Amino acid sequence: MISPLDHAAMAEARAHHDRLTKPRGALGALEDVAVQLAGIAAVSPPPLPEPVALAIFAGDHGVHDQGVSPWPQEVTQQMVANFLAGGAVANAFAGQVGASVTVVDVGVNGDLPEAPGLVSRKVRRGTADLSLGPAMTEAEALRAREAGAEVAERLVAQGARCLVTGDMGIANTTASAALICAYTGKQPGEVTGRGTGIDDAMLAHKIAIVTRALEVNQGRDPLAALGGLEHAAIAGYLLKAAELRIPVILDGVIAGSAALAAAAIEPEAAGYWIAGHRSAEPGHTAALAHLGLRPLVDLELRLGEGTGGLLAHPLVVAAARVLHEVATFDAAGVTDKEALA
Amino acid sequence: MISPLDHAAMAEARAHHDRLTKPRGALGALEDVAVQLAGIAAVSPPPLPEPVALAIFAGDHGVHDQGVSPWPQEVTQQMVANFLAGGAVANAFAGQVGASVTVVDVGVNGDLPEAPGLVSRKVRRGTADLSLGPAMTEAEALRAREAGAEVAERLVAQGARCLVTGDMGIANTTASAALICAYTGKQPGEVTGRGTGIDDAMLAHKIAIVTRALEVNQGRDPLAALGGLEHAAIAGYLLKAAELRIPVILDGVIAGSAALAAAAIEPEAAGYWIAGHRSAEPGHTAALAHLGLRPLVDLELRLGEGTGGLLAHPLVVAAARVLHEVATFDAAGVTDKEALA
Repeated sequence: MISPLDHAAMAEARAHHDRLTKPRGALGALEDVAVQLAGIAAVSPPPLPEPVALAIFAGDHGVHDQGVSPWPQEVTQQMVANFLAGGAVANAFAGQVGASVTVVDVGVNGDLPEAPGLVSRKVRRGTADLSLGPAMTEAEALRAREAGAEVAERLVAQGARCLVTGDMGIANTTASAALICAYTGKQPGEVTGRGTGIDDAMLAHKIAIVTRALEVNQGRDPLAALGGLEHAAIAGYLLKAAELRIPVILDGVIAGSAALAAAAIEPEAAGYWIAGHRSAEPGHTAALAHLGLRPLVDLELRLGEGTGGLLAHPLVVAAARVLHEVATFDAAGVTDKEALA
Repeated sequence: MISPLDHAAMAEARAHHDRLTKPRGALGALEDVAVQLAGIAAVSPPPLPEPVALAIFAGDHGVHDQGVSPWPQEVTQQMVANFLAGGAVANAFAGQVGASVTVVDVGVNGDLPEAPGLVSRKVRRGTADLSLGPAMTEAEALRAREAGAEVAERLVAQGARCLVTGDMGIANTTASAALICAYTGKQPGEVTGRGTGIDDAMLAHKIAIVTRALEVNQGRDPLAALGGLEHAAIAGYLLKAAELRIPVILDGVIAGSAALAAAAIEPEAAGYWIAGHRSAEPGHTAALAHLGLRPLVDLELRLGEGTGGLLAHPLVVAAARVLHEVATFDAAGVTDKEALA
């Protein structure tokens, strides 16, 4: 279902870069992004990745009972209301880049009133506690994946040419750490972080909970047993975007861990993803390394919601823009040192 | 002439950040940028740093005779023509962020036809060879500084609320390396880089030339003796912007070395500058460390022109936007964990 990147378009993008009025390779990692976009779109220059759409997948986590977050679980639904009212950081950053914001309830533990911009695809009221057994059944994970895929398909049908992942779910960095251990082989102590801000004692407890979760769920499908409903939904969203040949800018550690799950299902899909940023969570670095992705923004953000992905969008647009707008040595009458050699 | 940052506005920006619906500190380095902008503008929230203007200061370098660059000197004026025609990467990135582009001839070795967008303030036709003696007189450096200051003043008078530095000058990374040695005490081998792309033999030669330049100019004013006309102009631009309390986003190693010179003249001014990016040139890292600036973009760009500064502009805008648009815990009805404690 998912095609490999188009290598002919990528080669043409690289060759085009070398004809432009700049030293070869002078745009560093942005040249790689432009080449990737050409491979995704199967044409060089690739279309500008606009308009962009953000989907924020929200879900709650049974493991919250274990005291792994200082925030009450109600904050998940309070923040959903904040997204819908336009008051969160994700809204501010989305406004700046012209991104639409869609909030998807795949598992909030509460009844959310209908609202414009809210898609209700609740699979269950939060996961079960992953430190006691599987967080959800494989059938539930599949339903969440399908919800994510449907949202991606709808956003692209509405015109989006770039997607950004977003997430909301108190305690979801605990599930992310467990997923990252399962997919990369790292130890809980290496990849479990302070999330939205916890002290040393709570961090030690969180590492112990992740360790227990990995033990009690050994042999099970990691995404269903350890993930959150938002992780499963993001995995579906990522796979559908790749199938539609639309680039996705990944946000932070939640997206990174969901991407590991998606890449385990369809390895070819990872070519369609761009790491928007590297968060302060140690597990995110491990996930990106495993996926072979280089983050574009690296400013110690640890907010989620899609904020790091949105911040990277102008960089991705700029990368593509170069191939459209910059003059060649020949056309501009600039001497090319390579041609002199 | 240059006031310190406004500490009351900075404290208010920090306090405001802590009332917003996000974990404290969750926006990492962007929170520091927002606080800096508040200190610059002496108000919190600070105005959005828009509109933005780019000035590209162009000059030639006598040291080009020593074979420190594979590009012919004519490329400086060819690229000036390219900027004026809108064909360079700087034009593409400026267009994306709505930046005006002003090209300032402070020392191109050639006669440039008048053109819209070109400011003629030629001090001399390129510097003298810094490896044989001073690159210019102190009076010439002062004239270039004045040209830079006038451009900053004009752009702000025309409405700019954020400036970006740009530069063009074949061989100007050699002058930058010499300046960085002079101001930071680093050795030429530590800070001299490959510029737009040179081989090992030319790099060794370039290091030897920088070493000789430092020897023959010992005891002289570094900016005049080692700098380029564009370095001096950027120093003047940076100092005037600080005087006018307007933030400046620094581009790469040319701006970084000019900023060292400007900070040596007025240490307080450095508070008004934001490091747009970290380039691939090793000297840039040394310059930023000496200035105490943290770069926002770090993607191995090595192009100059202002490209790295322009790419950072959306991040700077986003930093300020948070303080304007994001809801507080109280207003959004979101539980604040700090208030629970």
